[in-house]
Amino acid sequence: MKWQELDAQPCSVARTLSVIGDRWTLLIIRNAFLRTRRFDDFHAQLGITKHVLSSRLKKLVEAGVFEKRAYQEKPARYEYRLTEKGLDLYPIILGLVGWGDKWMDEGKGPPVEYFHKTCNHKTQPTLVCSECHEPLDPREMMAMPGPGLKDVNS
Amino acid sequence: MKWQELDAQPCSVARTLSVIGDRWTLLIIRNAFLRTRRFDDFHAQLGITKHVLSSRLKKLVEAGVFEKRAYQEKPARYEYRLTEKGLDLYPIILGLVGWGDKWMDEGKGPPVEYFHKTCNHKTQPTLVCSECHEPLDPREMMAMPGPGLKDVNS
Repeated sequence: MKWQELDAQPCSVARTLSVIGDRWTLLIIRNAFLRTRRFDDFHAQLGITKHVLSSRLKKLVEAGVFEKRAYQEKPARYEYRLTEKGLDLYPIILGLVGWGDKWMDEGKGPPVEYFHKTCNHKTQPTLVCSECHEPLDPREMMAMPGPGLKDVNS
Repeated sequence: MKWQELDAQPCSVARTLSVIGDRWTLLIIRNAFLRTRRFDDFHAQLGITKHVLSSRLKKLVEAGVFEKRAYQEKPARYEYRLTEKGLDLYPIILGLVGWGDKWMDEGKGPPVEYFHKTCNHKTQPTLVCSECHEPLDPREMMAMPGPGLKDVNS
């Protein structure tokens, strides 16, 4: 299988990776969640070439993750804002953060801490079951074929 | 910045991506959570070259995500099992699944559904605040420098 064919796989992990599986893309999205919006700011913060940044932003706009909006007319300048689809990537970003905090902090503690404005507490994002609200343990989960697999097997 | 320098960044997203940011790596881990353990099974399921698979598995063993165990002696055969560090990647995998299910299901519904054996219900993994237990909205979160940033700024 080629990487380009990933989004045709009836697997939500593969489909998601076809949009955000690129290495730099996830760092661009990380910075967007830290309120970065402008090309020059992404460029300065990430230290990648303008060519790579430009191509990744274009793909993310095409995929509906970012909306491109003019914020200045002469010369034309644009900013990139997360759409609802983009904002929905937050659990993935926080998942990456949580694992790095736990397993790769070099004993120094988390580089970034998160504060939940709604309840006024420093928070540890936690993945729970929608039904019993208990934290999810992979050993207690069972994956079953869902409706999206039907066409493939028939 | 070069990709190889990512794990030196005081950012948990970058550090995590330095381990699992490779495209195929996340699919290998996805399959491990679906109980795949043997080289030949990963190979058959993923359709990647043996060379690529072998190099990715080796890196994941070195990173402590997989443990390599002999399950047969002559000829020697090994299986790859998720360690605690590896099992902790589950929220990331479920994050990828959730986004793909919501935004890329082509209107057919999720290809895979998850059943929580603890409570006997089909579950929708949900990211909540550890303090108030409400679902997390990125617009209600504030990121602050944590202890792991201190050395960098001093």
